[in-house]
Amino acid sequence: MDNQDEKKERNIYLNLKGIDEVKKIIDKISIPKLGSIEIKTSDAIGRTTAEDIYAKFSVPHYNAAAMDGIATKAEYTFGASEINPIYLPQKNYLKIDTGQPIPKDFDVVIPEEEVTYDEKGYAAIFNAAYPWQNIRIVGEDIVRGELLIPKNTVIREKAIPLLLSGGIWKIKVVKNPRVLIIPTGNEVVQPPVKSIKDGMIIDYDSALVAKLLEMWDCEYEITNIVPDNQEILKNTIVSHIKDYDFICVIAGSSAGRRDFTENAMKEIGKVLVHGVKMMPGKPFSISIVSNKVVFGIPGFPASAYFSALLFIKRYIAKTLSKTIKEDRISCDLSQNVPSKLGYDELIRVAVADINDKIKAIPLKRGASVFKSIYESSGYFIIPENVEGYPSGKVIDVYLFNKNINFKKNIIFIGSNDISIDFLKSLLKNFYPEFNLISLNRGSMGGLVSLKNMETHFAPTHLFDPTTGDYNISYIKEIFGDNRIVLLGVAKRNQGIIVKKGNPLNIKTIEDITKVRFINRQKGSGTRILFDYLLDKKSIDKKLIKGYNFELYTHMAICNFIQKGYADCGIGIKSAADTFGLDFIPIGYEEYELAFYEDFTNDERFDIIHNLIISQSFKNRLNEAGGYDMSITGRIRKV
Amino acid sequence: MDNQDEKKERNIYLNLKGIDEVKKIIDKISIPKLGSIEIKTSDAIGRTTAEDIYAKFSVPHYNAAAMDGIATKAEYTFGASEINPIYLPQKNYLKIDTGQPIPKDFDVVIPEEEVTYDEKGYAAIFNAAYPWQNIRIVGEDIVRGELLIPKNTVIREKAIPLLLSGGIWKIKVVKNPRVLIIPTGNEVVQPPVKSIKDGMIIDYDSALVAKLLEMWDCEYEITNIVPDNQEILKNTIVSHIKDYDFICVIAGSSAGRRDFTENAMKEIGKVLVHGVKMMPGKPFSISIVSNKVVFGIPGFPASAYFSALLFIKRYIAKTLSKTIKEDRISCDLSQNVPSKLGYDELIRVAVADINDKIKAIPLKRGASVFKSIYESSGYFIIPENVEGYPSGKVIDVYLFNKNINFKKNIIFIGSNDISIDFLKSLLKNFYPEFNLISLNRGSMGGLVSLKNMETHFAPTHLFDPTTGDYNISYIKEIFGDNRIVLLGVAKRNQGIIVKKGNPLNIKTIEDITKVRFINRQKGSGTRILFDYLLDKKSIDKKLIKGYNFELYTHMAICNFIQKGYADCGIGIKSAADTFGLDFIPIGYEEYELAFYEDFTNDERFDIIHNLIISQSFKNRLNEAGGYDMSITGRIRKV
Repeated sequence: MDNQDEKKERNIYLNLKGIDEVKKIIDKISIPKLGSIEIKTSDAIGRTTAEDIYAKFSVPHYNAAAMDGIATKAEYTFGASEINPIYLPQKNYLKIDTGQPIPKDFDVVIPEEEVTYDEKGYAAIFNAAYPWQNIRIVGEDIVRGELLIPKNTVIREKAIPLLLSGGIWKIKVVKNPRVLIIPTGNEVVQPPVKSIKDGMIIDYDSALVAKLLEMWDCEYEITNIVPDNQEILKNTIVSHIKDYDFICVIAGSSAGRRDFTENAMKEIGKVLVHGVKMMPGKPFSISIVSNKVVFGIPGFPASAYFSALLFIKRYIAKTLSKTIKEDRISCDLSQNVPSKLGYDELIRVAVADINDKIKAIPLKRGASVFKSIYESSGYFIIPENVEGYPSGKVIDVYLFNKNINFKKNIIFIGSNDISIDFLKSLLKNFYPEFNLISLNRGSMGGLVSLKNMETHFAPTHLFDPTTGDYNISYIKEIFGDNRIVLLGVAKRNQGIIVKKGNPLNIKTIEDITKVRFINRQKGSGTRILFDYLLDKKSIDKKLIKGYNFELYTHMAICNFIQKGYADCGIGIKSAADTFGLDFIPIGYEEYELAFYEDFTNDERFDIIHNLIISQSFKNRLNEAGGYDMSITGRIRKV
Repeated sequence: MDNQDEKKERNIYLNLKGIDEVKKIIDKISIPKLGSIEIKTSDAIGRTTAEDIYAKFSVPHYNAAAMDGIATKAEYTFGASEINPIYLPQKNYLKIDTGQPIPKDFDVVIPEEEVTYDEKGYAAIFNAAYPWQNIRIVGEDIVRGELLIPKNTVIREKAIPLLLSGGIWKIKVVKNPRVLIIPTGNEVVQPPVKSIKDGMIIDYDSALVAKLLEMWDCEYEITNIVPDNQEILKNTIVSHIKDYDFICVIAGSSAGRRDFTENAMKEIGKVLVHGVKMMPGKPFSISIVSNKVVFGIPGFPASAYFSALLFIKRYIAKTLSKTIKEDRISCDLSQNVPSKLGYDELIRVAVADINDKIKAIPLKRGASVFKSIYESSGYFIIPENVEGYPSGKVIDVYLFNKNINFKKNIIFIGSNDISIDFLKSLLKNFYPEFNLISLNRGSMGGLVSLKNMETHFAPTHLFDPTTGDYNISYIKEIFGDNRIVLLGVAKRNQGIIVKKGNPLNIKTIEDITKVRFINRQKGSGTRILFDYLLDKKSIDKKLIKGYNFELYTHMAICNFIQKGYADCGIGIKSAADTFGLDFIPIGYEEYELAFYEDFTNDERFDIIHNLIISQSFKNRLNEAGGYDMSITGRIRKV
């Protein structure tokens, strides 16, 4: 790197702003003048009032009976007692039901159960009453002319009876912000598409941003996809900006695109933020064009999501006088998490109660990875000046969904199998309030996670050539005296997966040296089995093309072969079937769930056990094929 | 009460079911078969999936460059070093941007900043690369065929990118429950109404229930108001039930009405619950008609709200496989709260941080009172077997709004004045995240609340005849050595309020004995002033008709006079003006806010102080009339 480049790098770094700095900039931007609109009271939920609202009617608007009974005049009852009741003639009382108006000359209600009547219509009263007893007096709840709801208040459903009973049929509310979403990129295509070519990117960002905006009370429109052309982008913004309160440009993430978006903004306005010291979300930008805000949203989905959540939500809340409350929960970090100096890293986590501690289990990172955001309960931030957090550190996790119940999250870390998908599906069918979150780290990885108490279950299929058995010897080695239990899922067929029709005619494990292979990661049961077979046949691993390239799931192996990036790999039959690939069996292995014996007292154990021994689960395994259910539901204590 | 009645009472009591019992009954009712509907993925937020959703595309669906740079083959780079770079001819590499597909024969991306080019187009590489470095491999995030989202899962906005990138443009979701709302009652009228007659009740319940149902993902229709006629109600239910998943009948609260609703249900179906041991909400009912649920919702708004919240929400959540999480917060109860044995009492409270403790301040009760529900932060339950809770008890408050920030609630308990409405209005204008909650308990009541630390401010105007001053001597008496500060709001004109045109020609306080009077409550500054004036003129209080009937606010006094229930009262000019009543001044008094000196360190003090000394506040007082601003903003330490 020469001096010129070093300077350039340093400049880029200096230009990036910290998260708090960006928040401060947002708080200082002037908010759009939204104007107001008069709408029906019952349509106003979620809207912000544009004027003070005063009651037009009192509630109650007349003196009303608070009980069923008779209305009379208190002074008629003076002197009444159990021994000497007072008898009221019919002209001096009126039968009345709750809610009915008190006649002008009466001022008390005697409850029905305290009155008896004789055949002549006289009502006997046994207690003296004081004036206005058992009457809801006019204005008891609301007095005409009082302030019901001030200007600048968000209407909640609780306001509806207040407003309607106060005689307010229509109210003036602040207009919702109108937002234009501009997706950009030559390679971006709008769904639906019939087929998808290499290099095409489906525009999921527009829909994500649109739905977030909608949730935050904005109205939106989405333009056609704007190609990578600075002039077209400029024109699109300039020609629409007068009709909207702000604009979101969804910019691509390639260096070229970033530049032209920034350049376009510089030419038509002022760039306030160009890049944030956060990951994901670094390429986020804020510009002012014709006194309105243009947000530049990064194209990678995790970046788009986080930057919208941290910054655009804040701007909208300020615009609509709404409060944002971040729900946080204190958790124990389940493992060491490295991070990059100079960036606030937003680490997504699953939150679950494990062994009576609330654990935050880090999920897959990366701006381009979105599934882990979908699966995560929330995120925490490792600040820019720290190089990672150690396992066990107490962290604050920001929750995505306030309704999360961390006692209902069930964590699986370990070996991957399609049967876990079946469990996920059955779980939601029979126990919808529970969630199964599975992380693929291979059998050994799973047992290490179990040892570190960061998972409930560790799916494992580790073959021990010395005993010929699965899992037991590995668990003894790792857990020593800790009581571990194994719950059998199924025996499953492992084999060589090849292209449909097996064009390269691969028949035995020896044939693998002749073709392009794709491997599973070290520590996975499949890899251990494969290495054992290679050693048994004395095959030199160096001769296998692709031996060092590892994927983490059976499905990923199949995907790779089907796409033509490799000729074969090893994995399970059900995965091969899903991809329409051929499968050369090499034998059955035992796939089990390892867990601590204590966990049998947790309802989540019972649920998973119930599902595994259910007929529904067996039916799914049968349909998938390649499974032997002789060990399904078997319990082995180690 | 004779034996017959006692037995009847006992039966009614035995028939009522406890809250938990009703919840269990709801959990056992079979849920409606909702069926499914296919909708656009981006329209599915909040909906429940009706089938397992599997990915149709992998993400990425091709091997993609993870950085800008050049694609090449890893083996070309083997042996490269800073000292001995390897020079790649143009045919052996391709310039590539992030996201672009890796050409078939290449397997690595070298980042742009690690490559230099010479004039002939050779690319110099200074480090050996390993295969698949800097490449997002196919299926890295999602593998085709994997389970994206199981059946019976609620779609959140986070699911949108997952589904769209996985090639899912449409999904099958569970149909929303369709609900029919049937308002009933001869006296009930549908808003809008031009004028309102005594005995008329505006139907606010239908709108409240409808909006709650909508929030809980139901679709609804509302029938015309059904009169109090058992046959019509029966026919309405029977003729519509096939078209809806369940029905909500909004039944009146009078005894007659309750009976006919119950009888109607008995004749066309089976009554499971008829009355709940809770207040408010006692008359709630559940019946089964043609295998569908009919909820009987009490007519009083607080009862309707609580029964919907506790029971109908639960039934809908179960129907849609959604989880309800109740947000609770632990608070100190600010005062003694009595309750009725035999009923779970739901006590609404304002929650606020007072003196670094989270206090729950009980608000007005009663099934017919709704404003206090609007103003409350949540509620707590006093169980049926307890006769009230003492002040200071630690209670769990269920929050109505998860976003509440109890450090932003500002509590005023004490004397009532229209200037508090002005503060409420200005507060929302300038500090929208704050809320002002005011309770009318009169000046003395407010000082007692301040002493008990259940309010931030106590508005007070207590005249001391011995000193001729306001407030100070009372505060010294109550607070002893505690440092209290008084912030002046305004001097205000107290006087005799009479009907427009003063038809009874009331001129002095002596004239009050000749007409019907309405009094303020004991301990209010107005009452103390009035009693002082009566004593000064040696007027016998027993001669004043209505002296013992007390109302709690100036506005309530005016309302009463305007409605003709009394001829005069005493109060402030601004209230009289609001109601178009006449006002005979008897003198100015000093209206101040009392608070602890420590509270001057709280931002909420600064905010209220800023508002009181603002020109906007003075303008409002001026417009209202009857105020002298010579003490506005004055600080007096006691």
